[in-house]
Amino acid sequence: MRYKEFKDYRQRMNEKIMEEGSLQTKRFFFLDTSVYKEGKISAKTKELMGLVASMVLRCNDCILYHLDRCIELGYTNEELYEAMDVALIVGGSITIPHLRYAYEMIEEIRKEKISE
Amino acid sequence: MRYKEFKDYRQRMNEKIMEEGSLQTKRFFFLDTSVYKEGKISAKTKELMGLVASMVLRCNDCILYHLDRCIELGYTNEELYEAMDVALIVGGSITIPHLRYAYEMIEEIRKEKISE
Amino acid sequence: MRYKEFKDYRQRMNEKIMEEGSLQTKRFFFLDTSVYKEGKISAKTKELMGLVASMVLRCNDCILYHLDRCIELGYTNEELYEAMDVALIVGGSITIPHLRYAYEMIEEIRKEKISE
Amino acid sequence: MRYKEFKDYRQRMNEKIMEEGSLQTKRFFFLDTSVYKEGKISAKTKELMGLVASMVLRCNDCILYHLDRCIELGYTNEELYEAMDVALIVGGSITIPHLRYAYEMIEEIRKEKISE
Amino acid sequence: MRYKEFKDYRQRMNEKIMEEGSLQTKRFFFLDTSVYKEGKISAKTKELMGLVASMVLRCNDCILYHLDRCIELGYTNEELYEAMDVALIVGGSITIPHLRYAYEMIEEIRKEKISE
Amino acid sequence: MRYKEFKDYRQRMNEKIMEEGSLQTKRFFFLDTSVYKEGKISAKTKELMGLVASMVLRCNDCILYHLDRCIELGYTNEELYEAMDVALIVGGSITIPHLRYAYEMIEEIRKEKISE
Repeated sequence: MRYKEFKDYRQRMNEKIMEEGSLQTKRFFFLDTSVYKEGKISAKTKELMGLVASMVLRCNDCILYHLDRCIELGYTNEELYEAMDVALIVGGSITIPHLRYAYEMIEEIRKEKISE
Repeated sequence: MRYKEFKDYRQRMNEKIMEEGSLQTKRFFFLDTSVYKEGKISAKTKELMGLVASMVLRCNDCILYHLDRCIELGYTNEELYEAMDVALIVGGSITIPHLRYAYEMIEEIRKEKISE
Repeated sequence: MRYKEFKDYRQRMNEKIMEEGSLQTKRFFFLDTSVYKEGKISAKTKELMGLVASMVLRCNDCILYHLDRCIELGYTNEELYEAMDVALIVGGSITIPHLRYAYEMIEEIRKEKISE
Repeated sequence: MRYKEFKDYRQRMNEKIMEEGSLQTKRFFFLDTSVYKEGKISAKTKELMGLVASMVLRCNDCILYHLDRCIELGYTNEELYEAMDVALIVGGSITIPHLRYAYEMIEEIRKEKISE
Repeated sequence: MRYKEFKDYRQRMNEKIMEEGSLQTKRFFFLDTSVYKEGKISAKTKELMGLVASMVLRCNDCILYHLDRCIELGYTNEELYEAMDVALIVGGSITIPHLRYAYEMIEEIRKEKISE
Repeated sequence: MRYKEFKDYRQRMNEKIMEEGSLQTKRFFFLDTSVYKEGKISAKTKELMGLVASMVLRCNDCILYHLDRCIELGYTNEELYEAMDVALIVGGSITIPHLRYAYEMIEEIRKEKISE
């Protein structure tokens, strides 16, 4: 999925889940947001941890979401590439298709943010 | 496996692999060491990323290794617990047995380091 | 993949596999069908188990297949959402993209079944 | 781990996590308990879903926990075996070591419950 | 993704990664190439091992890559189907969507190679 | 688990499963045996594929079983190490604890077979 398409789809479906889902579903979503907040570990570091976790678990949507947040929080490409090296070594060559997607999306996210 | 037992076993077997393994095996091991080195991202942050990746992939030996390194690099329990919250939410309740192991090992590692 | 497109593709490719595959392949496919049949555990409950397994293993095609079967067997949205809560907690936030897909497909399957 | 040893260890470590863990950790643990409660889907069915999810994700501690709960809720061996057939087919032969463990533990749990 | 589209995309993105990636990234890519080379185990056998690993880890891009290589190295459909039977039994029905994709791509790769 | 202990445990539990399990369970076990038999792909090659699949899926019992079979079928250590290099690169550093176990067990299996 492309960056813009993903952002729209994600927002629309999350709203649907928040409307129709059970109390437990909603609680999980709130908890999911809260663990990335500033704490003993900075929000910036946590976002990078989210990115690495998403890469080793091989989830493109999660990678795209965390790349978007990482770029908003000011990471450079060199920093992101280095963080993804950890994921690549931990997770092996099976993560390479997700690395390709990540490189592609980093470029797309930056273009989008400039044109905003 | 207990902390001391793991450290001995890990060292002994890694030496065996370094002696008998192929050139490719050795290259991978060197690469595995090098990605955690100080760079654009600090070695300290990378160790935390290694911990989170190990938890979501549910590997006790890897968790123990990274906890040991994280404690050497100065992380407090509160910081480690918060980092593991990210892994818990990303990876779900299936990671809880590994969280129990992590809490147990954090205590054991600290005791061992004091008595050294 | 959309619901209708998936159903056509799945049928066409399964037929190809049944024609060209080995005896072992065919035996596995028959076994795969037979474990969901009425037994000590009802077929209706088994379908829900298939859905939860598909969500924690994060396979959209499998989720779509089991949602379709679950809806045919009479589950309400509230029941499906609650079953998926178990998968969400067990499997963590990495399953959320599949939860979005599931909510989207539940709506699409119901529309399709009404218009049939 | 044996059944009794696991129950003691699990309780001791969960208490430690509840004492020392963050607010988020605790919230996740409460949520984890609440999704298995009676609702649109019965608690009994949810426990079986927990078992199947644990088998396909290949977590022995989780399998043991859900087997214990399933037996408390009145499932017969035949029902448990049939439920695990779904997990075996979905998850493949890689789940067989966990099936062996499950058969062993079912016997051990029943013996323990009789002698209580 | 279709075969031709994948080959173009893969080459373009790998070139971008080789240009922009870190020294570690490049080293991993070289290592990834070198482990499939002729050695004590033939390159032909290794490619089949790559295919089976890709199927049980459920990565379509990796499956397509190894199918392409396997066909170049002279495997017949019957041999590929039999190799995939091992993956199907080890990995279970959750690999079936990837088996469908593999059957589809085998046909597409062969057509493409004839028309070249 | 040690080699001898594993072989005894595996045989005892498989017999229990064959006695008490459902018809589907038994059918799956027969199918699991049959896919490794001599065919278009040799039994020897299939065993190596089973080893690689077990390593990337990170299952020690499955690794031990396939190592035992591979050694019976005549593979040298150098061949096994090279095959495991493919698994190491595909699956990444998360497989290293299983590589350590494999090296340890290869030595143990060979000693056991000499003393038989």
